[in-house]
Amino acid sequence: MSYAKLDAHCHALGALEHALAILGTDEATNMAPGGGESRAEAMAILSGMYHRQATDPKLRDWLEVAETEDLSAEQKIAIGELERSYINMTCLPSDFVERKMRTSMKSEQLWRKARPTGDWNTFQPALEDVVVMMREEAAMRADVLGLAPYDALMEQFDPGNRTATINPVFTELKTFLVEFLPKALAAQEERLAKRPLKALSGDYPVERQKALGLEMMKAVGFDMNHGSLSVSDHPFCGGVPSDVRMTTRYRTDEFLPALMGILHETGHGLYEQNLPKEWAHWPSGKARGMSIHESQSLFVEKQIGRNPAFWRFALPLVDAHLQESWTMEDILPHVHQVNRGKIRVDADEVTYPLHVILRYELEQDLLSGRVEVKDLPEAWDAKMQASLGISTLDDPKNGPMQDVHWPSGSFGYFPSYTLGALMAAQQWAAILKTNPDVDEQIAVGDFDQVNAWRRDNIWSKASTASTPEILRNATGEALNPAYFIAHLETRYGK
Amino acid sequence: MSYAKLDAHCHALGALEHALAILGTDEATNMAPGGGESRAEAMAILSGMYHRQATDPKLRDWLEVAETEDLSAEQKIAIGELERSYINMTCLPSDFVERKMRTSMKSEQLWRKARPTGDWNTFQPALEDVVVMMREEAAMRADVLGLAPYDALMEQFDPGNRTATINPVFTELKTFLVEFLPKALAAQEERLAKRPLKALSGDYPVERQKALGLEMMKAVGFDMNHGSLSVSDHPFCGGVPSDVRMTTRYRTDEFLPALMGILHETGHGLYEQNLPKEWAHWPSGKARGMSIHESQSLFVEKQIGRNPAFWRFALPLVDAHLQESWTMEDILPHVHQVNRGKIRVDADEVTYPLHVILRYELEQDLLSGRVEVKDLPEAWDAKMQASLGISTLDDPKNGPMQDVHWPSGSFGYFPSYTLGALMAAQQWAAILKTNPDVDEQIAVGDFDQVNAWRRDNIWSKASTASTPEILRNATGEALNPAYFIAHLETRYGK
Repeated sequence: MSYAKLDAHCHALGALEHALAILGTDEATNMAPGGGESRAEAMAILSGMYHRQATDPKLRDWLEVAETEDLSAEQKIAIGELERSYINMTCLPSDFVERKMRTSMKSEQLWRKARPTGDWNTFQPALEDVVVMMREEAAMRADVLGLAPYDALMEQFDPGNRTATINPVFTELKTFLVEFLPKALAAQEERLAKRPLKALSGDYPVERQKALGLEMMKAVGFDMNHGSLSVSDHPFCGGVPSDVRMTTRYRTDEFLPALMGILHETGHGLYEQNLPKEWAHWPSGKARGMSIHESQSLFVEKQIGRNPAFWRFALPLVDAHLQESWTMEDILPHVHQVNRGKIRVDADEVTYPLHVILRYELEQDLLSGRVEVKDLPEAWDAKMQASLGISTLDDPKNGPMQDVHWPSGSFGYFPSYTLGALMAAQQWAAILKTNPDVDEQIAVGDFDQVNAWRRDNIWSKASTASTPEILRNATGEALNPAYFIAHLETRYGK
Repeated sequence: MSYAKLDAHCHALGALEHALAILGTDEATNMAPGGGESRAEAMAILSGMYHRQATDPKLRDWLEVAETEDLSAEQKIAIGELERSYINMTCLPSDFVERKMRTSMKSEQLWRKARPTGDWNTFQPALEDVVVMMREEAAMRADVLGLAPYDALMEQFDPGNRTATINPVFTELKTFLVEFLPKALAAQEERLAKRPLKALSGDYPVERQKALGLEMMKAVGFDMNHGSLSVSDHPFCGGVPSDVRMTTRYRTDEFLPALMGILHETGHGLYEQNLPKEWAHWPSGKARGMSIHESQSLFVEKQIGRNPAFWRFALPLVDAHLQESWTMEDILPHVHQVNRGKIRVDADEVTYPLHVILRYELEQDLLSGRVEVKDLPEAWDAKMQASLGISTLDDPKNGPMQDVHWPSGSFGYFPSYTLGALMAAQQWAAILKTNPDVDEQIAVGDFDQVNAWRRDNIWSKASTASTPEILRNATGEALNPAYFIAHLETRYGK
């Protein structure tokens, strides 16, 4: 039976994925400094094995035969998803894949060298090579998938996401935000005029922050039997669904960044831990894509973690662990701070989407040739001025050189961040409809009902439908920015 | 060129070995409790990939062709070792390999269940199955390798080790030890009558013991850029040569077991870290085998770590970390304690070989049929009485049920422990010949010359020669128990 062969094939790929995931996590958390070279070689060879096995031509035959076999509905979906992933992995010729790896590795290395000093002239030709290559890739993917070039790139990260549906949503959101941001800043100023910001700085030993973080992780539903929390320079959520490896980093003079980071990664971790175990080795049993994943992390970090109701529950725990006695009025202004800034990763809920939409627009312009790399600093600056009122013209380091995505050849990824934020708000609104007491539950540390909805509607669905289908099935409607807009107005409008 | 193909093949196997080594280490040190099932599955599949690739029939052709190619001396050795390992891996039919895995897994599981209560009747039939299987395996290996059955089993662990050379050595050693042990015990009693043992118990926080252990590791030459120390239930030295993962376990009421354990694993780690890097992926670049490996761990633990000269260096460090002020007369009686006991892993330098020789003799008897499993408790007891003067007849848990080796199908491994002890003493003696001031060097924490000798004569040789050849090249003579015997007489005779 072809289905059985494919099942064994998925088990084999699953083992290599498992190895790569744990080796990657280990590298960031436990590897000896001198172990990097042989680790890199081992991972490159294992990735090669993975790619060879995942693109084996005999799979095409097995898939064809399997489609004629007597399969359950779930098995049919599994076959369909495997085929989707097979097509996405085989639609580029292998010499192109090699060229892409070399080009993007070179460009990323140059970026790492040039970024600290904002050396645009060194970086520009490297990025130009990447853009040329990405145009080729987009064209090839578009051809195979029957999609527009940029849609074909997004398809890798979020199956089913299309500019035709995203463009009007982002346009509406941008229009709102450009108008809303000054209001939110004015409202904040007014609040701070009445009650100046109280510094939350102090001396918070790592061990205490870790104990606090672990308590929060467990409270919001993270299963410590299938995961752990450690430390790395760049926080991430890695590992495998049966053993989710979350990391954070601590500063001893403040606690909020680490705590909020932990809540964010816990959102990713909850999704991974609650994927359907019996399908863990099939693509249909894996997390859907970047925007749904980000909706889960932002759900915990923003919808829950910056909700004042949550802080009625959290504040006593924070105080107990850090031996402070803050009031809600001390904490919330920090949790809800809004600032204009140049840096995406430092942005808050209100300004973050403006950073993303800028990139979403520019990467399409770069692909289509409407903008060339040499004009990027000006184009970036113009958009920053228009949306955030900030110039980056004399500061390329904190302008178009700030992110690793483009130099590493990730085009079509950026929209996932803001799509995730929109979806998180839409999911929260859907929960509120059937469970209007959700704030009261959260205020006493009861996350059962919220998590039950997410388990039924998001986590258990894994990759059994496209990104837009999962959202529509879960919330009853297509992507609608109104929920996120309403959320911002409520939290930041007055 | 076939050589180039084999080089790529070794790189691929090296990547899988790397993954399995790190996954194994991670399992013991960092895995979430619930992660075991999917880890076991992933490792089984990766082991299967490894075995399939390592036994690929096309290798036979490549090896044949490579032997006719124009290769350097090192490359020829590499081809020879790869062939040796290929023959060892392919000499059993795959249905037998599967049966062996099932049989030994079942037997090992039964052992884990039956051992705590010493339930011999449950355990006996499982071990009988293993012995039947090991007789078959030994016969098949013997047939392919042209060796006697037991030699063919030892060959997997220590290429070149033969009963014909080991038997007279072990006979001489046993004769000596049976006579020497009562003398050593009497000498110890006399010393303790003059100066009773001072308890070294106290409250030694894990962090202080760890700092002490790290300082010792570094002092004796461990490269912290290519390795680390963590905690696991069963201490081991794992990982890969570029990133050696040592573990230990701590008790807060005593420090010597952890410190001695760290020194032991450091010996293994030094060997791995100093193997020739350019040959890391070829069998000829890996550690030679179990007895040489054990000679390296015992060299650090016994020849260095229990040498009074070492304690002139170590004691001030121990005192500084643990905030004690012991004298040499307080410490050395603990470091040199000798006791008759039932348990191999708890045995000291003097009694350990008697435990090993007993098993060496019995496993040969089990394989040849001179002893059957049902008669093992009596046979074990008889040998324990004769060599150590202890009966285990009513205590099978601490008799023939104490070790995992037999139930897990490891026959021919036990002699490695004592061969390692003998070789370590022989290496020490060889060093003394060219470097008579070694005690003075060690007493001031200078391990450079000792390590230079070991690097030149053992570590850099990796698997470029057989076990006996490496020893002979390093020390100028074949395995000679006189050095170990003299070592024991000096340290324990008076």
